Amino acid sequence: MANLPKQVKIVEVGPRDGLQNEKESVPAEIKTELVNRLSGAGFRNIEAAAFVSPKWVPQMATSADVMAAIVRRPGTIYSALTPNMQGFDAALAARADEVVIFGSASEAFSQKNINCSIAESIARFEGVAQAAKQHGLRLRGSISCAFGCPYQGDVAPESVADVVRRMRDLGCDEIDIADTIGVATARQTQTVMERAAREFQIDALAGHFHDTYGQALANIYASLEVGISIYHSSVAGLGGCPYAKGATGNIATEDVLYLMQGLGIETGIDLDIVVDAGQFISQFLGRKSASRAGNALAAKRTS
Amino acid sequence: MANLPKQVKIVEVGPRDGLQNEKESVPAEIKTELVNRLSGAGFRNIEAAAFVSPKWVPQMATSADVMAAIVRRPGTIYSALTPNMQGFDAALAARADEVVIFGSASEAFSQKNINCSIAESIARFEGVAQAAKQHGLRLRGSISCAFGCPYQGDVAPESVADVVRRMRDLGCDEIDIADTIGVATARQTQTVMERAAREFQIDALAGHFHDTYGQALANIYASLEVGISIYHSSVAGLGGCPYAKGATGNIATEDVLYLMQGLGIETGIDLDIVVDAGQFISQFLGRKSASRAGNALAAKRTS
Repeated sequence: MANLPKQVKIVEVGPRDGLQNEKESVPAEIKTELVNRLSGAGFRNIEAAAFVSPKWVPQMATSADVMAAIVRRPGTIYSALTPNMQGFDAALAARADEVVIFGSASEAFSQKNINCSIAESIARFEGVAQAAKQHGLRLRGSISCAFGCPYQGDVAPESVADVVRRMRDLGCDEIDIADTIGVATARQTQTVMERAAREFQIDALAGHFHDTYGQALANIYASLEVGISIYHSSVAGLGGCPYAKGATGNIATEDVLYLMQGLGIETGIDLDIVVDAGQFISQFLGRKSASRAGNALAAKRTS
Repeated sequence: MANLPKQVKIVEVGPRDGLQNEKESVPAEIKTELVNRLSGAGFRNIEAAAFVSPKWVPQMATSADVMAAIVRRPGTIYSALTPNMQGFDAALAARADEVVIFGSASEAFSQKNINCSIAESIARFEGVAQAAKQHGLRLRGSISCAFGCPYQGDVAPESVADVVRRMRDLGCDEIDIADTIGVATARQTQTVMERAAREFQIDALAGHFHDTYGQALANIYASLEVGISIYHSSVAGLGGCPYAKGATGNIATEDVLYLMQGLGIETGIDLDIVVDAGQFISQFLGRKSASRAGNALAAKRTS
């Protein structure tokens, strides 16, 4: 058996990546409460905001309000998505600790979504990257469609490696490799992660898995085996899959924490408090949590 | 990376283990159609019936009707649960290919459920085991609570090994190790499987995982790594968890098949037909399939 990391960082993406696709507007107070509950659980990194055009992502229009209202937990990194300099300036004003830039590993996805090549799309972030360095903000690069693309299908590990290099050269402190449509399986995951680790320090590479085909937790376990020690997850499994209506999106944080507990891997996070946070936001949204561990642990409490 | 098995056997347990806990009676015609659809998909082993007291498990009262009505696919093993000689006689009359006996790896579970020790409970199956041999039926032993127990909590791998030995000594052809309450995580799974494989030929050991905490597929992947090549799963994830209301039960077959496809492991099963079967039974039950891959693949078809 491969040695697994002794500790991992879990990046909670529910408040941003998770809630972003909710059709009904979630009030800033609810988002604030969610973020506070999560930081209270011990997360060292929470994706809390996106400074994007409210025309494109209305749910994120209250990002500045949320960032202003949350209670900052010392040591916790609050991240914000910043598509451009306008977004960066807003993130800076909102006192984000980390800004997130992004690109696709799929040429077809890049062309279809933002009408330019991958290379161009990454180059456009040069200003944001420089500004982040100037202001001492952390810079994270997020690579979508790293394991498959809704338009072109397969994505070569070499394409992922190419985007990793470009983001590294822009000065990224951390890079996450995302299975945007949840199609990856375990060995493919290991292949891509090992390829990426030849371009960037492995302890700053993150896995962002979607559970669309039920594979996310197996992919996380497979990634642990090759030494990946940062994982994204979403409380209560917030966030659907825009490419397959009714399908599952982000892996649920509670399920990931349950795995780490079982493996004896330290996260610094209190699962019980996360279960509460998951119940809180699921009740607000008026639906059952998509976290299996969350639902099982909540059911156990009441039985 | 460990070498994975090149092919695996998937035992479809939906028609019995899956439907058993359904409160509403499912007509024999529906069960028959489900079994036929599954054998049509290529399963070499389907758990189709249980010859148990209809007082205890009313849903299984039509087992003989189902076994009489199904179209037998040559080479497919149709299994039936047989708690005693009466059950065995019924299974024999119904032309079951395999009878399933069972016991718990948890002393507390055994005492609480059947009011006797594990050792006694296994010994009681001696008649069934002998009769199976006499009549040339396959004999499978099923070990519940092998990774945790709703009453005693932890279960030692040594307790599992002890039940494996007892079932082996009764002449079992195959033994499945079941995580009845879905609490196992990946490394624990490997430890228990490796321990069991010291008592019984590894290629006749099966993993039966529940997804209550979202861990089932990671546990299957971890089991593949230690050489386990038989897995139980339930189409559409049929079967809840009686120990945690509202929680998830059996791992969905579609998710397992998707994993195997991704790993290049042969199953002989047509995933598309399984997706159809999952949609068929879910529509009958009037609810969304619990299979993530099943839902994603079905959504993809209609998009």
